[in-house]
Amino acid sequence: MSESWHRGAAAVATLTFDVDAETPILARSRGYARHAGTMSHQAYGPDVGLPRILDLLDELDIPATFFVPGWVAEHRPGLARSIVERGHEVAHHSYSHRPPTSMTPEDERADFERALAVFADQDIEVAGHRAALWEASWQTAELVAEYGLRYDSSLMGDDRPYRVATASGDIAELPVHWSLDDWEQYAFLPAPDIGSVIESPEKALELWRAELDGMRHYRCLFNLCMHPFLSGRPGRAMALRRLLEYALECGDVRFARCRDVADAALADPGLPTRRPQAPVVDPDVYPV
Amino acid sequence: MSESWHRGAAAVATLTFDVDAETPILARSRGYARHAGTMSHQAYGPDVGLPRILDLLDELDIPATFFVPGWVAEHRPGLARSIVERGHEVAHHSYSHRPPTSMTPEDERADFERALAVFADQDIEVAGHRAALWEASWQTAELVAEYGLRYDSSLMGDDRPYRVATASGDIAELPVHWSLDDWEQYAFLPAPDIGSVIESPEKALELWRAELDGMRHYRCLFNLCMHPFLSGRPGRAMALRRLLEYALECGDVRFARCRDVADAALADPGLPTRRPQAPVVDPDVYPV
Amino acid sequence: MSESWHRGAAAVATLTFDVDAETPILARSRGYARHAGTMSHQAYGPDVGLPRILDLLDELDIPATFFVPGWVAEHRPGLARSIVERGHEVAHHSYSHRPPTSMTPEDERADFERALAVFADQDIEVAGHRAALWEASWQTAELVAEYGLRYDSSLMGDDRPYRVATASGDIAELPVHWSLDDWEQYAFLPAPDIGSVIESPEKALELWRAELDGMRHYRCLFNLCMHPFLSGRPGRAMALRRLLEYALECGDVRFARCRDVADAALADPGLPTRRPQAPVVDPDVYPV
Amino acid sequence: MSESWHRGAAAVATLTFDVDAETPILARSRGYARHAGTMSHQAYGPDVGLPRILDLLDELDIPATFFVPGWVAEHRPGLARSIVERGHEVAHHSYSHRPPTSMTPEDERADFERALAVFADQDIEVAGHRAALWEASWQTAELVAEYGLRYDSSLMGDDRPYRVATASGDIAELPVHWSLDDWEQYAFLPAPDIGSVIESPEKALELWRAELDGMRHYRCLFNLCMHPFLSGRPGRAMALRRLLEYALECGDVRFARCRDVADAALADPGLPTRRPQAPVVDPDVYPV
Repeated sequence: MSESWHRGAAAVATLTFDVDAETPILARSRGYARHAGTMSHQAYGPDVGLPRILDLLDELDIPATFFVPGWVAEHRPGLARSIVERGHEVAHHSYSHRPPTSMTPEDERADFERALAVFADQDIEVAGHRAALWEASWQTAELVAEYGLRYDSSLMGDDRPYRVATASGDIAELPVHWSLDDWEQYAFLPAPDIGSVIESPEKALELWRAELDGMRHYRCLFNLCMHPFLSGRPGRAMALRRLLEYALECGDVRFARCRDVADAALADPGLPTRRPQAPVVDPDVYPV
Repeated sequence: MSESWHRGAAAVATLTFDVDAETPILARSRGYARHAGTMSHQAYGPDVGLPRILDLLDELDIPATFFVPGWVAEHRPGLARSIVERGHEVAHHSYSHRPPTSMTPEDERADFERALAVFADQDIEVAGHRAALWEASWQTAELVAEYGLRYDSSLMGDDRPYRVATASGDIAELPVHWSLDDWEQYAFLPAPDIGSVIESPEKALELWRAELDGMRHYRCLFNLCMHPFLSGRPGRAMALRRLLEYALECGDVRFARCRDVADAALADPGLPTRRPQAPVVDPDVYPV
Repeated sequence: MSESWHRGAAAVATLTFDVDAETPILARSRGYARHAGTMSHQAYGPDVGLPRILDLLDELDIPATFFVPGWVAEHRPGLARSIVERGHEVAHHSYSHRPPTSMTPEDERADFERALAVFADQDIEVAGHRAALWEASWQTAELVAEYGLRYDSSLMGDDRPYRVATASGDIAELPVHWSLDDWEQYAFLPAPDIGSVIESPEKALELWRAELDGMRHYRCLFNLCMHPFLSGRPGRAMALRRLLEYALECGDVRFARCRDVADAALADPGLPTRRPQAPVVDPDVYPV
Repeated sequence: MSESWHRGAAAVATLTFDVDAETPILARSRGYARHAGTMSHQAYGPDVGLPRILDLLDELDIPATFFVPGWVAEHRPGLARSIVERGHEVAHHSYSHRPPTSMTPEDERADFERALAVFADQDIEVAGHRAALWEASWQTAELVAEYGLRYDSSLMGDDRPYRVATASGDIAELPVHWSLDDWEQYAFLPAPDIGSVIESPEKALELWRAELDGMRHYRCLFNLCMHPFLSGRPGRAMALRRLLEYALECGDVRFARCRDVADAALADPGLPTRRPQAPVVDPDVYPV
């Protein structure tokens, strides 16, 4: 058990925050930079939501991982450093938050490198990566390995960590899922259209607690993805606190930063290996 | 009563799983094969969700029916066989998961035959069919009869089995409905857009339990449609278990494979017969 | 009080069923006539949902109003008559279910007349009208008055009956609202897209009960609009029964057919009169 | 404490009503003026919802702020005056309800001025402004200051009041948020499409109460935005009453008009100042 990725816990919880700020909106169209209301909606994340979340994590003494686009780290110079200094992990979340599937391989690589340069400039050591919108390309895992990172957290091929073999070596995958993301529960903007109905924190809590309980039953990785501009709002922060308090009370949930889980996973001799590759598709079968 | 399709039960429950894997996404566009994240989301179904569901059915000793697209059976050679060996039924779910309404009659027939050939190659005897997206054409029931299958499960003309008369003979229809499908409750992807809000397992359970109770009152076929990539997730699998445990506790719900219900229906002298045909539509009344 | 439209009740409840069958789908495109699955989904309404609802109304001894498109009455010759014979009202719901706002004034008139002819042929006396999709034009109320009907039930200008003055005389308006419609709670089809998430009957019941209680407080018309293809499903029919049982238990809710409420309203000397007319819009203010 | 914007309360609640009537629909397209049903849906707001809300506020003795588009004040001459006479505040909500982000700077200014002229004509003194759809431009705050208003309530950069510095002087920002708006919970129209599922008042109450409790914890501005055509409906008005009664019972929530909170904020020496400006966006990074 001591060599296994879960270290004997019923479930391992990685609390992750994607500090996207303006980037997902600008990735839809740079024209939204003209929208003062929309930009203020996004700026709330780093300006108000993030400090509130950092305080909450302090109070509960839970370590977390913050995925930060390079553009955000660059435009708010002290931000990434302040997260590290509070004992948390900062990880690579692209430069621009444009999804890899929307870019050429060359552009994806350039975007990937540009974020690495920002973190190097700021003396932030990053160990892992998460693709924008979780829309990884088949090249993404290889880039992660090639540039010496140890894990990715964008794929959905399992609900436990797995090893991904690439031409540049192995990395750990810490899989995500839409049901463990606050975006689908809380996001709303009229332009660009980024969501539909706004759910109550009570409903989100019910959903995530159900998944946590299921994951405790099946010994999985509860890889929760929150966004400060969404879950940093007062009522939602209170619901997140209740979720974390519940997890702590369970007594069998282990909280860890992604890099620590990744290291444990890569050291686990029983970890399954996957070699994700694109399905070969016959245009006669799928003509569109 | 012993000759009736329900064998005296208040409701008959057919637990069905559509093992679609990548096919519904590729049917939207083969370009999605380039999306590693999206493909991993779909591969979760056969790789993780399906084994979990098979174990759950073992534990509860409930027989089920798995509708498998030919493409999926072909690309994962042992999959269909392993389902049959666990005591369940494998049935025809098209080859490509392209809906019949989007194809010419010739293409629908070719797709239908190609799936039959895959199952014949794998020595899987199929007795029934379900159209992709439940979007049957008026030819679909006839194809089912012509190729010697005994039932279809795609239409919504009733909430009890009925006989469909075709030029190639009669088949049983085991009707479905969107309210008994996990897709509308749980599915989400940003690209392609396959859903909206993600509901909590508690809400889905409430919905399906209400329908089950209603169907016990009205003596109907509770034909539940689950997808391993959706309902195989930990919290949802636990909710499915609770639903099944509830149904078992009711004491008046009979679980059966679709083929067994179809055989009982076809042997029921009181089963109503329908002859579905396209409404004749006047272009002056409906100009669009 | 005895002369007022509500006859002293805290709220008056008009239970209405729009027996649309295939028409709302064909109004989107006649091409959907090729979709066997979709057509079966709509046929369920008159074939299965309607008889179930009629039985439920018998059991509870509640009179209701059924708005039937002329096309439906024509294609299912005994349908309208059988509703009347069970003690309920049949009313005008257009011929084709194409919304007036999508037609020229001449086409709206022709469609209106064609439905009247169908009901005349079937010896069904209709006293009121409801526009398809509730998308009345400014001409609609006038057509209603001109052809001798006594009420319309398509507008949302109040939550109590009101008098509408037209060049052809006065009619009563029995206003509707989206929150008292089962479509927004239950409707789903992938093609055409007619809804989003499918709600549980429990949620719909909560919503309608809240509105009923609010309307009892404010003395309003609880004008509930159900569709047999939606609310005729087993779990939903059971929820509708619970709602009706609750209303009956309240003791201060009066159930009536629309025509009876309309007659009481027109005889109420205190009924407010409205003269709906199109706002004059300056293209400089609203250039689009 | 006595100098702080919150005057010692745990949370300050500004109850705001956007009396939009037909304007948000006409802003989508003036063609909707032809839709009698849709226009009646909007007219319900000023005609039925508004008087009901004013009565409710009287009963609970709570002061509120009503944001009225100039077009609405002009087309319903007594409306704004009657609100003021009941002890509430009327504020600037554009002339046409076209969002600033959809206009040229010149058009935004002209629209802004035209609304001021309407209020001046009606002898209504306005102290604050809210952008249509909350879609402020970067010029909006400056217009507010330039024309001598003291606050804006359109941005989302915080959940407490803040000072916005413009070239024309400082104003207070009373920030809003989509989660405190009834539109996302209740709005529905088929054309134009303005919403998705209709939530029950119970759910909206749960959501807003969670935010209120969160805001009491974090000492925030609970700036609730209601629309009479939505929240004036009977069941929703009852839910709003329950929310307000809850807030009153808390004992630590201070209700105030926006102008009073703005004045307190501008007099608060500890109020943070922001200088919102458009992010500089590199077209190489965001090519779309």
